[in-house]
Amino acid sequence: MAPRAFAVLPLVALVYGPTLWVCPRVHRSRGIRRMGRAATSSDISASFDSFANFLQQQQSEIIHQLEDIETASFCCDPWGSVDTGSGGITRVLQGGSVIEKGACSFTCIRGGNLSAERAKAIRARQEDVLVQAGDAFAATALSMVLHTKSPLVPTFRSDVRIFWVQSANGQEVAWLGGGADLTPYYLNEEDIQSFHEMYCKLCSGAKLDRHPGFNYQAMKESCDDYFYLPARQEHRGTGGIFFDDLPVDADTLDFARGVVTTWMASWLPIVKRHRDDEFSAKQKQWQLLRRGRYLEFNLLYDRGVKFGLANANPRVEGVMVSAPPVIAYEYNHRVEEGSPEAELLQVLRKPRGWVNK
Amino acid sequence: MAPRAFAVLPLVALVYGPTLWVCPRVHRSRGIRRMGRAATSSDISASFDSFANFLQQQQSEIIHQLEDIETASFCCDPWGSVDTGSGGITRVLQGGSVIEKGACSFTCIRGGNLSAERAKAIRARQEDVLVQAGDAFAATALSMVLHTKSPLVPTFRSDVRIFWVQSANGQEVAWLGGGADLTPYYLNEEDIQSFHEMYCKLCSGAKLDRHPGFNYQAMKESCDDYFYLPARQEHRGTGGIFFDDLPVDADTLDFARGVVTTWMASWLPIVKRHRDDEFSAKQKQWQLLRRGRYLEFNLLYDRGVKFGLANANPRVEGVMVSAPPVIAYEYNHRVEEGSPEAELLQVLRKPRGWVNK
Repeated sequence: MAPRAFAVLPLVALVYGPTLWVCPRVHRSRGIRRMGRAATSSDISASFDSFANFLQQQQSEIIHQLEDIETASFCCDPWGSVDTGSGGITRVLQGGSVIEKGACSFTCIRGGNLSAERAKAIRARQEDVLVQAGDAFAATALSMVLHTKSPLVPTFRSDVRIFWVQSANGQEVAWLGGGADLTPYYLNEEDIQSFHEMYCKLCSGAKLDRHPGFNYQAMKESCDDYFYLPARQEHRGTGGIFFDDLPVDADTLDFARGVVTTWMASWLPIVKRHRDDEFSAKQKQWQLLRRGRYLEFNLLYDRGVKFGLANANPRVEGVMVSAPPVIAYEYNHRVEEGSPEAELLQVLRKPRGWVNK
Repeated sequence: MAPRAFAVLPLVALVYGPTLWVCPRVHRSRGIRRMGRAATSSDISASFDSFANFLQQQQSEIIHQLEDIETASFCCDPWGSVDTGSGGITRVLQGGSVIEKGACSFTCIRGGNLSAERAKAIRARQEDVLVQAGDAFAATALSMVLHTKSPLVPTFRSDVRIFWVQSANGQEVAWLGGGADLTPYYLNEEDIQSFHEMYCKLCSGAKLDRHPGFNYQAMKESCDDYFYLPARQEHRGTGGIFFDDLPVDADTLDFARGVVTTWMASWLPIVKRHRDDEFSAKQKQWQLLRRGRYLEFNLLYDRGVKFGLANANPRVEGVMVSAPPVIAYEYNHRVEEGSPEAELLQVLRKPRGWVNK
């Protein structure tokens, strides 16, 4: 597969971008020396297609697992041409028994051309990479958000994406990014620990030795750093892992596959533990208020949403699908000292370690 | 009053800024030639204080008028030192019989210093003005938003602000800005016409001949242009007037006073016509969905909110007080062709003239 001259399509989950898989014949910078063997253009092309297929299969598998625990079903909104050109499959469930609103979206862009803004963003983050406006790119992603009906079940968000640029000068670079994180409304330590431990174990087992910045601890901290609302001086949730700019090789691709297959394994047990727990109207209102922060983060800070909406003709419903279903705002809402709500806030203000090593 | 060396305080409604009242002894550019007589520093100081007093009185008067039609009361959150230094009075009503959430906030900043970002923003809009980071400024504003309980009563938003900068080089500039606009959920033409006609009449009666860019039609179009969501290709509401960069002189100050005293006169009759009309759950849900757009505009595009939240230590509740109380998001919500909801959308996509001349 070679990127072709399609127009750039908006793609929320793919904005994050870079560090790399580089064909060393054209690229001799620091990035290269981090690589094991030399990757070739056909390696990248084959891996890209295979990873895109994996993500699309996982979308079906995840929807299947979610519909198993749900009374409602996901709609299916395909657009463009997923298999050969650019397109996506947006799947959304609204008004479920567990998921009040959830989305699982697969996207694959082939033959895009970097906008000036995106090329600049890549250069700002990747000194080695000489990409410029107009360079061809391909990208594929699976991204999810599951807003829960019960305030006792945490909201789940995740994505994995691969981004591949072919510069006019012959340079090729590819990066992986993604992660998974929890946004609980009440602090159930067992839930949050089990969630983090699963990703910690995955990271420890992955062959990421050649990528020293991508251990569990570093990716846990990246997650806390990214999902932060500076004006509120609060993190959005209790985190998980977040990685970006991960060079593409066989090991990192394996790791990214592992991340995707851990998503439901890390979240469904929490759902099953609490889906039938009774909750009060006050607890529901607290969830609605916290969802205001969720939307604030998405609209004010999330790179994907900002990029998606800045596009000339955005698929706005696809971008805004991450918005919670019902949100409340109260002026000067205060929580009672020592209450479960205050306990959550304390952790959001000062993230905690969740894994005992 | 002379601006003193206080820290810059965040001030949502005052961000918009500039065109001017300039002491001609130091400023000989195009801006000046638009002025009538030469304004002096003491003129500006006296007018600033008098205008701040007027806004503070109007806050009380407006709250009085609103509480007359309400079962709930406004809380009163004063901060800082309104009379001599910098401070404000935030007044908020939540859970009222007419107003589901409303705020009327008076703010007065004395002795602020321009941040580099704000100075740059002023220079970008005002080529004549040589302001720079660190220049002293004073500003005062009254801003309102009234989110209605009934979807048959439009949401009302308004503000008026004066912004005065004293440059280190001795130059002094002052500007007025403000306006008022309606965000209806259903298109009652009589309501919208009466609202616009009132501001049209005010503009015609104001002595704004020396400021040709500030007639009703221009300010109506500015309002449509400002409250626009490019990603949705929708205007937020049915507009009103919006003005910015209005040079300060006796006539423009009179006009700005007239704007403030027109607010309740333009909105309360609409409230009284519809407050007791019955509405359905479907109509309420439509209101909640439209409120999503309200918040999107505030977080993505509103200069005041963006500036307010970007501040190092923002009074975030003061900034976010404009958020609607309850908001809904539905993926791919569609309105029925020919329905009242579709009729509203048509006008939001293509603003209409509301005044027959």
